[in-house]
Amino acid sequence: MTEYNINNTKFLKDIEYPKDLKKLNLMNLRELADEVREYLIDTISRIGGHLGASLGVCELTLALHYVFDTPDDKIIWDVGHQAYIHKILTGRKEQLKTIRQKNGISGFLKRSESEYDVFGAGHATTSISAALGIATARDFSKKNFKVISVIGDGSMTGGMAYEAMNNIGLLKKDIIVILNDNKMSIAPNVWSLQNYFNDLMTNDTYNKFRSKVWELTEVFDKKNSDRLRKVGAKIEGSIKSVVTPGMLFEALGFRYFGPANGHNVVNLVKMLEELKRMPGPILLHIITEKGKGPSYATDHPQKIHALNPFDKSTGIEHKKSTVSTYTKEFGTALVELAKNDPKIIAVNAAMPDGTGLNLIQKEIPDRYFDVGIAEQHAVTFCAGLATEGYTPVAAIYSTFLQRAFDQIVHDVAIQKLPVIFVMDRAGLVGADGPTHHGAFDLTYMRLIPGMVLMAPKDENELRHMLFTATRYKRGPIAIRYPRGNALGVKKEDFNLLEIGKAETVKKGSDLAVLAIGNMVQNSLDSEKYLEESGISAEIINARFIKPLDRELLYDVFSRFSKIITVEDNTVVGGFGSAVAEFAAENNLKSDLLIHGIPDRFIEHGKPEELHEELRLDPKGIAGVIKEFLTKEKVAEKN
Amino acid sequence: MTEYNINNTKFLKDIEYPKDLKKLNLMNLRELADEVREYLIDTISRIGGHLGASLGVCELTLALHYVFDTPDDKIIWDVGHQAYIHKILTGRKEQLKTIRQKNGISGFLKRSESEYDVFGAGHATTSISAALGIATARDFSKKNFKVISVIGDGSMTGGMAYEAMNNIGLLKKDIIVILNDNKMSIAPNVWSLQNYFNDLMTNDTYNKFRSKVWELTEVFDKKNSDRLRKVGAKIEGSIKSVVTPGMLFEALGFRYFGPANGHNVVNLVKMLEELKRMPGPILLHIITEKGKGPSYATDHPQKIHALNPFDKSTGIEHKKSTVSTYTKEFGTALVELAKNDPKIIAVNAAMPDGTGLNLIQKEIPDRYFDVGIAEQHAVTFCAGLATEGYTPVAAIYSTFLQRAFDQIVHDVAIQKLPVIFVMDRAGLVGADGPTHHGAFDLTYMRLIPGMVLMAPKDENELRHMLFTATRYKRGPIAIRYPRGNALGVKKEDFNLLEIGKAETVKKGSDLAVLAIGNMVQNSLDSEKYLEESGISAEIINARFIKPLDRELLYDVFSRFSKIITVEDNTVVGGFGSAVAEFAAENNLKSDLLIHGIPDRFIEHGKPEELHEELRLDPKGIAGVIKEFLTKEKVAEKN
Repeated sequence: MTEYNINNTKFLKDIEYPKDLKKLNLMNLRELADEVREYLIDTISRIGGHLGASLGVCELTLALHYVFDTPDDKIIWDVGHQAYIHKILTGRKEQLKTIRQKNGISGFLKRSESEYDVFGAGHATTSISAALGIATARDFSKKNFKVISVIGDGSMTGGMAYEAMNNIGLLKKDIIVILNDNKMSIAPNVWSLQNYFNDLMTNDTYNKFRSKVWELTEVFDKKNSDRLRKVGAKIEGSIKSVVTPGMLFEALGFRYFGPANGHNVVNLVKMLEELKRMPGPILLHIITEKGKGPSYATDHPQKIHALNPFDKSTGIEHKKSTVSTYTKEFGTALVELAKNDPKIIAVNAAMPDGTGLNLIQKEIPDRYFDVGIAEQHAVTFCAGLATEGYTPVAAIYSTFLQRAFDQIVHDVAIQKLPVIFVMDRAGLVGADGPTHHGAFDLTYMRLIPGMVLMAPKDENELRHMLFTATRYKRGPIAIRYPRGNALGVKKEDFNLLEIGKAETVKKGSDLAVLAIGNMVQNSLDSEKYLEESGISAEIINARFIKPLDRELLYDVFSRFSKIITVEDNTVVGGFGSAVAEFAAENNLKSDLLIHGIPDRFIEHGKPEELHEELRLDPKGIAGVIKEFLTKEKVAEKN
Repeated sequence: MTEYNINNTKFLKDIEYPKDLKKLNLMNLRELADEVREYLIDTISRIGGHLGASLGVCELTLALHYVFDTPDDKIIWDVGHQAYIHKILTGRKEQLKTIRQKNGISGFLKRSESEYDVFGAGHATTSISAALGIATARDFSKKNFKVISVIGDGSMTGGMAYEAMNNIGLLKKDIIVILNDNKMSIAPNVWSLQNYFNDLMTNDTYNKFRSKVWELTEVFDKKNSDRLRKVGAKIEGSIKSVVTPGMLFEALGFRYFGPANGHNVVNLVKMLEELKRMPGPILLHIITEKGKGPSYATDHPQKIHALNPFDKSTGIEHKKSTVSTYTKEFGTALVELAKNDPKIIAVNAAMPDGTGLNLIQKEIPDRYFDVGIAEQHAVTFCAGLATEGYTPVAAIYSTFLQRAFDQIVHDVAIQKLPVIFVMDRAGLVGADGPTHHGAFDLTYMRLIPGMVLMAPKDENELRHMLFTATRYKRGPIAIRYPRGNALGVKKEDFNLLEIGKAETVKKGSDLAVLAIGNMVQNSLDSEKYLEESGISAEIINARFIKPLDRELLYDVFSRFSKIITVEDNTVVGGFGSAVAEFAAENNLKSDLLIHGIPDRFIEHGKPEELHEELRLDPKGIAGVIKEFLTKEKVAEKN
């Protein structure tokens, strides 16, 4: 299809910054919204990216930049992937075409990218806390800019939002929180308040809302106390169902406005103009449709959360790999196991599709739990299940499980509860960049006493590890694996793995490569480059980061003077570090090279590109090995 | 004073288990409450421990075990230190005298200690999540026991509580949550809802609560719509203030009952009997006094949160050390710095006294923030402050900062924001045991790219580190130090430390000791044991765990064939591991011994006892060094 030509637009062609927006007549914003939406869809259809969230806040984004004086006024977007249109309007209209590409602009907000990006956010539920920090600083500095947090109903299920609102209510700061309620954060929302919101969607102004309350009170009549008592319960229920949506926020000290139609840009502007002048904590509740615009998007909002390039008339993604993903292989294996083991319960935090739990959700819905964007609760909920003899499987992305670090230590590990942690998106995730790389889990899970920590070399080993985990009852056990395609190996029956046993996948004589997870295959694939140089590497699939295979390590250290560890995790405190600790403990003196993700935040790019940059691809690993073998030996003591 | 003699009691003498309690007449519970309270105060006055929380739930504990069939019915105490009376009533009446002592019973709940201890909890806000897990398991197993969570108003400020209640509301499980509202968790409460609760304290039944709502509605009159509009705002406010306390919970799907007097044991029993029969999620709100009983306790509830042994007639602790604590030295230094630097802002999570921030709270109250038991929010709030050029100091115990691990990574470190983390209670904290030891911070903070991580050898170095941190603007920087007394060294003026520079505190020739934090003094003190054996140790104060002093390390590795690292942190991924990584990276072959907290959860006991057990006291360190020097060398390659 032909590219959408901005030069042919009526308004968008002249918009580079919010100041250009302000030149428009209020009524023009409607047409501009259509143009922006079309440009966004066209661009993302070509390069892929998050689409639904930004389509949903198209009118809101225009209204915000129209009403407020950004960047002096601070808009803090909760989870940056709703901010593509914000980027279009703030000097990055052309750069949108590079979004999430290596060296292109970020798919999330990024402070170093633009002064309009006030606070970076890849993980959910941070914006209200950040807003309070900024508003507090503003007041100390006696400045008077406005602070606005835009947060989805999904993010509102996260406990941090409550912590922050509670604190704002106490401090009574001038902050506007805009609750973007699309009834569908990433997955259909689990927020129990949703039930109330749905009933209220037809009321789009606060006055209507209040009049509802007043109408109800008509049934009260102080002179008739008998009748009063009789209708008591009924009245009580009625008041609740009407008053509640706002009441949660009012209880926390906010003035509540809404629910309002989030796609009526003219009304939004008028409301924001009013709210702008009000002091104190304000919550504006707007109702939007995720993926507003094309019918395929509104009909299947989950499908268009994040996309590969697609046909913009149908929404169908262009290329589908024929190789299965680790995610799907996990989901499939879990269903197989759960069918034969009624104790298995699957738990996730608002990511049924992303984690592969959509499969068990479909097959065994009563043993599937989506707790919302609430990783802390998810883990302790699992701990509770485990105390009663169940086998909970917490499937949470590596980067998001960081949210529950304390719960893993305190609620699971100290009590030796057999909770299974399944960490998808471990290692470098690609286009989502530094907020989403699962670069730390080997370290933060390894430090936990009693944790068993595994990473499979391929999808069969993932099956065996999951099977092994469901049979392991002595405490917590974790599996981590990368985003994306598995290796495409032929499916095997479940095998029980011996805890802490590695395997030698290829014998060799010049050095030993201790690899973990997806780095096993990359190490095997490095062979062709090594053979050119006549290097013979012994390659070991470590399988377990904890406990280590001490017997095998003794043997390796006794046979090889050069050993390299390869991992898709930070080199700080990770797998290589575990081997270094082992070597120190046992006074083993082979040269040890710890190869992995360097100790810095890695930018976005395709995983292949990042692996190449960090020399974690086969060629890179071969290069590192060659240098290691030829390196001048540092003078040794003794 | 003479010991309280249980044999002289009317009821307590015959109570060992809840079944004994059930033999009593309801009216006897009042007298029993007095006896239990007196026994508790007497015992804790002798041995020290948490007192206020358990005194506050005396009647509730009796009522719960009287009404419910524990341990079949599950009582989940949020933060176990409110459960001393629960322990008295569940087979541990005599053992109370050993509480928090080495080899005695735990100060918290412990699953391995008693079947009545359903779920261990040292950190706050976990009980509702655990309750939901247990209730879900119950329903899968088609059992019909009751699940009760008892949670304080302080813990209710934690986001996990909201995540869990929201999820319960959705799943509609039969769970009773008892909100123990003492208006004073550890510090005076920061919950903004508190304002509403206070107004309502005089209403102690749900009926009164509802009648309030009804009275208000008298002002409504549908025939007079003008008047209606005029009083609109007023009515709105009135409805809010009356309806709110319950509404938060009603909004989340709970049926709300209360507020009720938590010290009327007879009424409590009657209410619980009623609630026991009700299905679905129920929230019972009770009002209690922390430290209910002795006047010194109710008058100064913060003071009696956790105590050393004290005079039970006055509440005055017997022995006060003359040496200052690290906590106080930090608090003092912060005030000194903040007085000269208006950008410094102190933030803590409901621990003003414990963190030493009570000093700045008193001296510069407007730059002191207590955000509630909400570590996640605390950290991101700091990140927000930092974006506006402020210098936030987040003072949070090492173990509690685990709650904010993701926020440190995602909101602070990725954005390179200059937030200062001050981690008190690092290392082994003593009587509070495994849930409270700060045994992991060197590892979980070290893995974060760009983090600067320090530990002072004494209180002067703490001052210098804090000063250095306030001048460091390139990103996050952290200081960790232990609970308890500092060394008592003479106070020095602030000194700017060079980032990443260690210091040699004693020259030696036989081996190098790389020590960090409080282990520096312990290593120096090990000298006397080493000298007996004619061993000369060079002792280095590492100061920085990250970045390491590479220059000094090169020198040390070149001069010594034996090097030992000593740290009050897990040996997994910590300081020693950092040195091992450095050695591997630079192919340095000296023998390296990593000495620290072993890779298991350490039970409670006095810090001295634990240090002795783990050989981290001076004598123990000397012993480890001697063995290290005389150990047969493992055959080396090359």
